[in-house]
Amino acid sequence: MAVSKRKRVDVRDLDSPCMIVYESIVRQNCQAMLDRCKALGVQLRPHMKTHKTVEGARLMTGGSCSCIAVSTVAEAEFYADHGFDDILYAYPIAGEKKIERVLALHQRVDNFHVMVDHCDQLALLLQNSEPVTKNLAKPWSVFIDVDVGYNRTGVNPFYDYAFGLAETIDKLRSTHLAGLYVHCGHSYHCKSPEEIRTVVKEVARDTAQFAAQLSERGIACPVVGIGSTPSCSQPPDTVPGITEFHPGNYIFYDLQQHWTGACEVSDIAVRVMTRVIGHYPDRNRLVIDCGFTAISKQHDADTSLYAKFDDHSELKLLSMSQELGIVGSSDDRPLNLDNYPIDKRLFILPYHSCAVAGLHSVYHVVDETDTCTATWKPCRGW
Amino acid sequence: MAVSKRKRVDVRDLDSPCMIVYESIVRQNCQAMLDRCKALGVQLRPHMKTHKTVEGARLMTGGSCSCIAVSTVAEAEFYADHGFDDILYAYPIAGEKKIERVLALHQRVDNFHVMVDHCDQLALLLQNSEPVTKNLAKPWSVFIDVDVGYNRTGVNPFYDYAFGLAETIDKLRSTHLAGLYVHCGHSYHCKSPEEIRTVVKEVARDTAQFAAQLSERGIACPVVGIGSTPSCSQPPDTVPGITEFHPGNYIFYDLQQHWTGACEVSDIAVRVMTRVIGHYPDRNRLVIDCGFTAISKQHDADTSLYAKFDDHSELKLLSMSQELGIVGSSDDRPLNLDNYPIDKRLFILPYHSCAVAGLHSVYHVVDETDTCTATWKPCRGW
Repeated sequence: MAVSKRKRVDVRDLDSPCMIVYESIVRQNCQAMLDRCKALGVQLRPHMKTHKTVEGARLMTGGSCSCIAVSTVAEAEFYADHGFDDILYAYPIAGEKKIERVLALHQRVDNFHVMVDHCDQLALLLQNSEPVTKNLAKPWSVFIDVDVGYNRTGVNPFYDYAFGLAETIDKLRSTHLAGLYVHCGHSYHCKSPEEIRTVVKEVARDTAQFAAQLSERGIACPVVGIGSTPSCSQPPDTVPGITEFHPGNYIFYDLQQHWTGACEVSDIAVRVMTRVIGHYPDRNRLVIDCGFTAISKQHDADTSLYAKFDDHSELKLLSMSQELGIVGSSDDRPLNLDNYPIDKRLFILPYHSCAVAGLHSVYHVVDETDTCTATWKPCRGW
Repeated sequence: MAVSKRKRVDVRDLDSPCMIVYESIVRQNCQAMLDRCKALGVQLRPHMKTHKTVEGARLMTGGSCSCIAVSTVAEAEFYADHGFDDILYAYPIAGEKKIERVLALHQRVDNFHVMVDHCDQLALLLQNSEPVTKNLAKPWSVFIDVDVGYNRTGVNPFYDYAFGLAETIDKLRSTHLAGLYVHCGHSYHCKSPEEIRTVVKEVARDTAQFAAQLSERGIACPVVGIGSTPSCSQPPDTVPGITEFHPGNYIFYDLQQHWTGACEVSDIAVRVMTRVIGHYPDRNRLVIDCGFTAISKQHDADTSLYAKFDDHSELKLLSMSQELGIVGSSDDRPLNLDNYPIDKRLFILPYHSCAVAGLHSVYHVVDETDTCTATWKPCRGW
């Protein structure tokens, strides 16, 4: 169903399944992160990967349309096309296949940054550099991907290799060391704000120490950045030595974030709207028109929960096929199916909003009167 | 990367991650199902939900471009737009929201069928019928969704309610009973062709018995259809009383199907192509550019396997974040990372091809010389 920005539609009149974004919650989440970073004295570089929209990026950057991180070349191109002038492609640069597109971004975006964790990646950058020696072009602006406990990608800041990499970037004429980038992915294992703060303190300490050691060696490293939505949502009172935060998911939050202690349920800004389409009283089941194409099968490993229902804690999404969801009782008691007539709208809080957003080609933005006031169209692909 | 039908590109030159379809395997899978149905004397009504493309539909229907099943109204509209003249919207009809679009399909497609499992759905159809009594329009062609062991949707054929529903459809002037539709979803729990055949025999027996009982009551029920890819791939030698098969996934197959006993690994026609982008020898890990946005997190419940790698049984996809896959050893032995240089292409066999296909806006079709000869663009949305 097409909804223009001018035509105002009641959310309940939208076709289902569809993804709903509550604009007032998004605005609160974005403003709270801007305020938190200001209070901590760190630059916010919001990550776009969760929503991938221009509208969301404007809110996350407080209208500056600058200083963002992205996860794909397609996103970088999308935001460059929309005038964003400071973009970190926060992905280990690799591969001959994408380097031409990355080079084009380097040339056309005022402040475009790439990320490396290995000297071989520098060779790739050098092979694709204009002749900096003749001042014909700017050097590559490079972040070092630093691994401080998550063990996905990145250099270990306690290894000599990390210092060698930084020194090489610093010395080469075609590269400039812009900063350090730490993804605190292990903060997703936390279960409370206190646990998150403990993780952030450790990450900030190790990252800042690495930056200080680089400084002692005469290597300038302007940006010392850490991020993840849990760590940037529940940081300690101070983060000495850290200059930048780069969270992403907080624009929407989700149940996974809530369960880490990053947010309250009331901070979750997205829903999948679905309708009841069948009653199966013999099995104490409802069927809804939301399958894995609308909400994904991502779920909490401990509880196997895919989702929760607004205003209906007695309901549980038990399983999904491609286009159908099977709903039962969350406590095994019989459901009074009269409470869920056919066509009744149900609003589902997702486990992982990044996964859900990736399944929808349009997000329906809803105001506090449940009126759909806009549609956001995300960038897709790689 | 745009690939026109005329420009021939080596698959290894495609950007990654991307979805690859091996055309010769697709053709074999499609022809084998056509041959199997012919030998059994049943009509094949292939389900489009897995691929949602015109090209795939042509191959599945043996070029007839008729007699298909779909899972969304968007698919029905897509195939109607492309001239398909016999379409079963194989989804429990419900809800006032979609009925206008369904009515438009009923009016413009020669043989458009809807599916019901409750009398309330008939009321919805009647409220949205043209005046059949004056011969101004055709009646709704209705399949009954019958539940024979899967327990998702459908009427129980052993309950009086099922007969009442069939009688009502038969008697009403605005509806015509086209047939029975059974989804053998429980065949996905099988572990061998023998187990599948046992399930199919039971489903076929109960479904045919219900059809025979309807016939005894004077209710004509032309089509008696059962389906699911396992059951239609490994049927018994005869299926007495069954007139139609409606499998879908077999066009591509996947590891899930292989593990049920439905197919060989060599029958799996899709891959996600990815590249090695990082080496982490300390942890005995590779990182690839395939995260959950490219292959989904769907996995086998027993083994937790997301995927397998062509030609590299020693590799295991351990975990994924949004755009990265973490690969380790399948047997905990050290990997020789020299065998997987940066930029090396790896081809991943997915657990569930329906979920993977839903994540890609284009499928790259590859011939036996590993040349990309076409791109297929699927229908999306609901």
